Amino acid sequence: MDCIFCAILAGEIPSKKVYEDETAFAFLDINPFHAGHTLVIPKRHVADLTADPQALAEIAPAVTNVAGLLLGKLDAEGLNLLVNSGSVAGQEVFHLHVHLIPRYADNPGMAGLARRDPDIDLDAVYRRIAG
Amino acid sequence: MDCIFCAILAGEIPSKKVYEDETAFAFLDINPFHAGHTLVIPKRHVADLTADPQALAEIAPAVTNVAGLLLGKLDAEGLNLLVNSGSVAGQEVFHLHVHLIPRYADNPGMAGLARRDPDIDLDAVYRRIAG
Repeated sequence: MDCIFCAILAGEIPSKKVYEDETAFAFLDINPFHAGHTLVIPKRHVADLTADPQALAEIAPAVTNVAGLLLGKLDAEGLNLLVNSGSVAGQEVFHLHVHLIPRYADNPGMAGLARRDPDIDLDAVYRRIAG
Repeated sequence: MDCIFCAILAGEIPSKKVYEDETAFAFLDINPFHAGHTLVIPKRHVADLTADPQALAEIAPAVTNVAGLLLGKLDAEGLNLLVNSGSVAGQEVFHLHVHLIPRYADNPGMAGLARRDPDIDLDAVYRRIAG
């Protein structure tokens, strides 16, 4: 299987699952910008935002649900939703994924979006979200 | 009217309209990161991403349509979709808006997202999109 996200969906690669419904699956990004950084993906393989006209609408309810879940479980004060479509835009895995990036008061604004918080403990974050 | 985007929807403030359907309206950002930077907003007032569980799904078809339109009309090689939800995340207008930011080969990647291209001619960009 060539697509790493399809392999995660198939259970061939482990992931820290945050949410799942009929059309979408969400899991912690293993290289987070900020604590709780989560990826929401469609269960079917769609390469990017414009490859399928239905894809974003299909996973939008899951995206909103996961956003609410993250804000409810973490001490985040807001979040960014980010999709990189095309390598020029920073897309690295060509299976559509929506980044949901919780944001904290000590590293705010557009300037802080890609300024990674150091030393994020993925296991500790996961316990807070899944607990 | 307190909301500047509601005032745009009401025609009280002019905008460069890119797209409109029953639920959504899209117009050029007047302070673009990159040429063709467009905002897609719901026609009803929703403060942010998590204020209404239906809002993102409601405007998702418009977002996808506008993404395709921008990629078809400009020489962009990809684009970012960005929502800032909460002031800590960079939200400045509290009417939900989806940024669609076309991306070009000379200023790529996550590092280039907020590194503004200088001297963008809004009128010239608008003629290409609307033409």
